[in-house]
Amino acid sequence: MAETQGKVITCKAAVAWGPKEPLVIQEICVDPPQKMEVRLKILYSSICHTDLGFWNGTNEAERAFPRILGHEAVGIVESVGEGVKDVKEGDYVIPTFNGECGECRVCTKEESNLCEKYQVDPMKRVMVNDGGTRFSTTTTKDGGSSQSQRIYHFLNTSTFTEYTVLDSACVVKINHNAPLKQMSLLSCGVSTGVGAAWNSAKVKEGTTTAVFGLGSVGLAVAEGARARGASRIIGVDANASKFEKSKLMGVTDFVNPKDLTKPVHQMIREITGGGVDYSFECTGNVDVLREAFLSTHAGWGSTVLVGIYPTPRTLPLHPMELFEGRKIAGSVFGGFKPKSQLPNFAQQCMEGV
Amino acid sequence: MAETQGKVITCKAAVAWGPKEPLVIQEICVDPPQKMEVRLKILYSSICHTDLGFWNGTNEAERAFPRILGHEAVGIVESVGEGVKDVKEGDYVIPTFNGECGECRVCTKEESNLCEKYQVDPMKRVMVNDGGTRFSTTTTKDGGSSQSQRIYHFLNTSTFTEYTVLDSACVVKINHNAPLKQMSLLSCGVSTGVGAAWNSAKVKEGTTTAVFGLGSVGLAVAEGARARGASRIIGVDANASKFEKSKLMGVTDFVNPKDLTKPVHQMIREITGGGVDYSFECTGNVDVLREAFLSTHAGWGSTVLVGIYPTPRTLPLHPMELFEGRKIAGSVFGGFKPKSQLPNFAQQCMEGV
Ligand SMILES: [Zn+2]
Ligand SMILES: [Zn+2]
Ligand SMILES: [Zn+2]
Ligand SMILES: [Zn+2]
Repeated sequence: MAETQGKVITCKAAVAWGPKEPLVIQEICVDPPQKMEVRLKILYSSICHTDLGFWNGTNEAERAFPRILGHEAVGIVESVGEGVKDVKEGDYVIPTFNGECGECRVCTKEESNLCEKYQVDPMKRVMVNDGGTRFSTTTTKDGGSSQSQRIYHFLNTSTFTEYTVLDSACVVKINHNAPLKQMSLLSCGVSTGVGAAWNSAKVKEGTTTAVFGLGSVGLAVAEGARARGASRIIGVDANASKFEKSKLMGVTDFVNPKDLTKPVHQMIREITGGGVDYSFECTGNVDVLREAFLSTHAGWGSTVLVGIYPTPRTLPLHPMELFEGRKIAGSVFGGFKPKSQLPNFAQQCMEGV
Repeated sequence: MAETQGKVITCKAAVAWGPKEPLVIQEICVDPPQKMEVRLKILYSSICHTDLGFWNGTNEAERAFPRILGHEAVGIVESVGEGVKDVKEGDYVIPTFNGECGECRVCTKEESNLCEKYQVDPMKRVMVNDGGTRFSTTTTKDGGSSQSQRIYHFLNTSTFTEYTVLDSACVVKINHNAPLKQMSLLSCGVSTGVGAAWNSAKVKEGTTTAVFGLGSVGLAVAEGARARGASRIIGVDANASKFEKSKLMGVTDFVNPKDLTKPVHQMIREITGGGVDYSFECTGNVDVLREAFLSTHAGWGSTVLVGIYPTPRTLPLHPMELFEGRKIAGSVFGGFKPKSQLPNFAQQCMEGV
């Protein structure tokens, strides 16, 4: 048993005190895990666009400061709260911003990974158990001292800290032999992208695909589509330097909107004889979303949204356009149920998809 | 062989000369069917909201006058053009506004009924074969005489006439013993509604359903959902007098938005523990569409659009709302491939679904 078990841990964390304010590396207190919670020592944590979006504070309703951001990480279990059975002290785990309680009406169905209790929720800032936080500090952002002040949680995870507390529903055990640094990508980008191709679009062999936005998620989508045998993967990005790298991930054709005098969807329809079978929108731009939608073939084309849309703009699609048989749907965490499906996926990644 | 075969037939038709102008019952000439076309004698024809929409001429791009409207009917084949094999003189048939060529990339796939060549097209006003029309007249709308003037076709059908010419792809043979009057409903409302439940939503036993708009299509949706074993069918309509009739078609709960002080979707979520499995939008109103969308359960809810949306307004849905796992799709002609699936459906209707 860890000697810290049941005690408050004092450690360092990177705290966000306000929108666009530099993170402050400072001392914080991390409470012991409560019922069905887990306290982790974070080993690796990466930064993702989603962290930046919340740090910018663009969406007022989602603002909550002070806060510990970060959601892509690998950690080791320091201690567990009452009732936690599936992980124990010393286990290697990855936190997942989209959880799985295993018992709600959604978790007991196959169709969806949006657990009623622990699904990703940008508004959430406290623990489910008691509506409180497990982080606090007596240090002000300027390094002075103050009365104890609570610090908010973020996306079920909060990983920019030496220690964090999560609901056990948001923690997935991984193999001790796994390459830990890479495993942190399974917390977000790789699972999101590959899963969008595998679980959400269900890409079939010999089909055609267009990927809008060749960032890390878009590249993971391409990799996932290639692994499923897509015969043609069209990458769309305004940055020509991305083509070479994207080729390695399976992209066969590159379309740069800047080089075109016609809309991207028209170009894609021309080179594919009517449109691709699947398109993936990974930019978070609603105008690109419309191009992605129109790039698929009428009758069966399917568009999967993977980007985050910070705009108040609604969908730029006319209802009658849905009658042409093109489908559109959002994909959260690649459609993976984290606790029940991610360990197997991690294994596949280690063996080379 | 009909003695009229190969000759122009002179008969009566109800001609629409301009938006909102009364139809004129007058003499017209109907040319013989060309290659892969069929000429029908119409036995019964019903009127549907879609006819009225085009008669109103609300959508400028879809206007075409003079024109013969009408798309729900039963007819008997008078003669067939070159190459027509699957129907012959004397066959009883129903016209379908959404055709099936049997050979295009869509017709040879299971996923869709939107034939690349003969799918419903509100802009279309002439025959595919030669871009011409088979209707003409030398009578003006005031009863005077004029040089021969062509009359436009409508929705692949044009049934408000004693004789009409259609592509054979838009004609479905029915049983001689069928109750002909009722069969005309298979041309549109019944197939559209029942098919939306069966083919588009694929309603499963024991599920919950909400039907927005209890006109003839909405009632057919309810009937279709009941036939598939839906345990609860919530009818939504602002006209309370529709409830009694809708009960006969399987509606179990009636919600009148006028009686509520909260949004309909909130009411439906409350009485169903989170939302229905399927909702059907049959009103053509985009605000109702939003209510229908939000009425389904997060994670797996599916909304099927059946209405026609004459508004220029785009979908009042935020892209992030698609990340809650609710699906939305349009359904044309109930998802039935007319020539290959409607005869079997007609048989089921005769035997009592
Ligand atoms: Zn991320
Ligand atoms: Zn759950
Ligand atoms: Zn109709
Ligand atoms: Zn076809």
